[in-house]
Amino acid sequence: MTTRSTSSPVGLHRVLEPTGDAATLPQAARRLDARPELWPDEVRIDVETLNLDAASFRQLAEKHSSDGIVDGDAVRTEVLQIIAERGKMQNPVTGSGGMLIGTVAEVGPESPTGLQVGDRVATLVSLSLTPLAITDGLERWDGRCEQVPARGHAILFGRTIAARIPEDLDPRLSLMVMDVCGAPALVERVVQDYTSGRIGDGTPPTVAVLGGAGKSGSLSLAAARRAGAGRLIAVVPIERERDLLVSTGLADEVVIADARSPLGLSRAVERAGGPADVTVVCVDVPGCEQPAILATSQGGTIIFFSMATSFAAAALGAEGLASDVRMLIGNGYVPGHADLALDLLRSNPRVRALFESRLEPNGG
Amino acid sequence: MTTRSTSSPVGLHRVLEPTGDAATLPQAARRLDARPELWPDEVRIDVETLNLDAASFRQLAEKHSSDGIVDGDAVRTEVLQIIAERGKMQNPVTGSGGMLIGTVAEVGPESPTGLQVGDRVATLVSLSLTPLAITDGLERWDGRCEQVPARGHAILFGRTIAARIPEDLDPRLSLMVMDVCGAPALVERVVQDYTSGRIGDGTPPTVAVLGGAGKSGSLSLAAARRAGAGRLIAVVPIERERDLLVSTGLADEVVIADARSPLGLSRAVERAGGPADVTVVCVDVPGCEQPAILATSQGGTIIFFSMATSFAAAALGAEGLASDVRMLIGNGYVPGHADLALDLLRSNPRVRALFESRLEPNGG
Repeated sequence: MTTRSTSSPVGLHRVLEPTGDAATLPQAARRLDARPELWPDEVRIDVETLNLDAASFRQLAEKHSSDGIVDGDAVRTEVLQIIAERGKMQNPVTGSGGMLIGTVAEVGPESPTGLQVGDRVATLVSLSLTPLAITDGLERWDGRCEQVPARGHAILFGRTIAARIPEDLDPRLSLMVMDVCGAPALVERVVQDYTSGRIGDGTPPTVAVLGGAGKSGSLSLAAARRAGAGRLIAVVPIERERDLLVSTGLADEVVIADARSPLGLSRAVERAGGPADVTVVCVDVPGCEQPAILATSQGGTIIFFSMATSFAAAALGAEGLASDVRMLIGNGYVPGHADLALDLLRSNPRVRALFESRLEPNGG
Repeated sequence: MTTRSTSSPVGLHRVLEPTGDAATLPQAARRLDARPELWPDEVRIDVETLNLDAASFRQLAEKHSSDGIVDGDAVRTEVLQIIAERGKMQNPVTGSGGMLIGTVAEVGPESPTGLQVGDRVATLVSLSLTPLAITDGLERWDGRCEQVPARGHAILFGRTIAARIPEDLDPRLSLMVMDVCGAPALVERVVQDYTSGRIGDGTPPTVAVLGGAGKSGSLSLAAARRAGAGRLIAVVPIERERDLLVSTGLADEVVIADARSPLGLSRAVERAGGPADVTVVCVDVPGCEQPAILATSQGGTIIFFSMATSFAAAALGAEGLASDVRMLIGNGYVPGHADLALDLLRSNPRVRALFESRLEPNGG
């Protein structure tokens, strides 16, 4: 096996297939080198739990089901096979991965991550690009849920992001928050663009959050408020979510509307004091692009966080409506995003209560 | 038939199916009302030529081919059928339309478009949302090319964009320019964000244009230069395009690289003076998202104009690389975009020569 002598901060040196002219980044690679020995800028993690992403686990469970009964042994066998063959946990059908929790075992002398041996961390990048080896045969996992107790090791590259799990919070709360922490960080930045006058004349912007009662939506509302937004409008699909959100006071107006309905959404936002200067799309269903564009004022900004967003529907939709809006792809990475989101949770009892309600059975 | 008594600037009043709670915008509608009578803010066009979009024509031609011979009569019959059934020319398989050229026949008293009877115009929005009726059976069309001589009428809504076809330019040149005019307009705006200090400290940004020899790419280079960009890097896939572009002087550096290759692209841009502060993606092939991200500096901006862009690949790609970049969906509409692009062509003999070379046989 040929080994690159120098490492790349994005992990190119761990890509085993394809190589040469067709070389890809680790996420697109068929196979990674998961050897435990570190290049100088890497970190090795002792794995504790894998969290398979929802789409991946659903595909595996459905594949290995008969009469609605999941064959957990078969799911476990396939997961072990994938990791052994690919050197990472990337579902070959969905392409997705998940994240992991573990403890820092070794830190390379040139690691820029600031992590220390013994830190308990969660990775904030996908398992689909993280070199991984399993040593316990996943014997403590029944193959029937997304949380996988595991022993083995994983590798972080120079630029791989991982966050220390805070000791003052229920780890399940922290993980929920970290999972969506890119949204409030980017919303804060955009609202500050407005309040500082970098965009517009410094007037606090009216902000509408579609899916305001969800995890990324409620944190986005809290972030917009703290960053100095003007009127805050939350859009939710059903009464239960409206009642929940009204009780928190996170938004000035909470309205019920179908975010896929152009007329329904734009009228609801208008009645609540819109159109919005900044519209934040946190609704994970297809077809919200043109409605979001219609609900946003000319010269306004739309931030798409939903993975169901269609690039073409947004681009052609704005053109078809002659709508001069700035449309941002919600980058999941903003420096300091995990700390910012955890701080919002700590400092805002209403956000915290909303998240804690999700820990309870049937909590949403 | 129930008729809305008031019109909507985005054409909701012309949607016949679906209606009620499921009502959509004209682009997503199954059927539009193409009656020639105008609502007060509308404009009626006498149609001269339909330009079917490339994806739509290819699908129709392949469907009605045997042994590589296109049955033009069958293609024409299907196009007539689509228009008659849907009240618009929207290919049901590709979802796409095209644009049209015609002459303004009537202007409603409340039309905000500024058009006048007799103006020769091109629509800058898709046929997929434009009410259309054909009266000549497309008898002058052989069904074998994308340009369709046609008689009939089309309707522009209050907010539908159309541009007068200039008299001083070959109409084919004007149409080529108008087809991609959103790109230079948005590039100009973003570069001015940098030079004015709204982003960064006012230093002229290094701009890389992927696909710099193409129509949108070359206009983007010219727009960036005029807006005060610093170093201009053009990336092209092959030597012929490099030689063509070097001769125009539109870029400071022209480099050959595969925009799908993360390492290949980022190294090429780096050698040419990168990474880029602003990366403009005009390459219509999938898989350019992570390469573009790697070629862009931290804190930089990427504008995606390619319809082959994957929203998820961009969002997850930036997260996976821990890359703090601002990613914009290339909105095809910016006020004044057609005039700006035509002006770039008129004032820049090099851009003009590049476009004129496309009019020649085998001109690209």
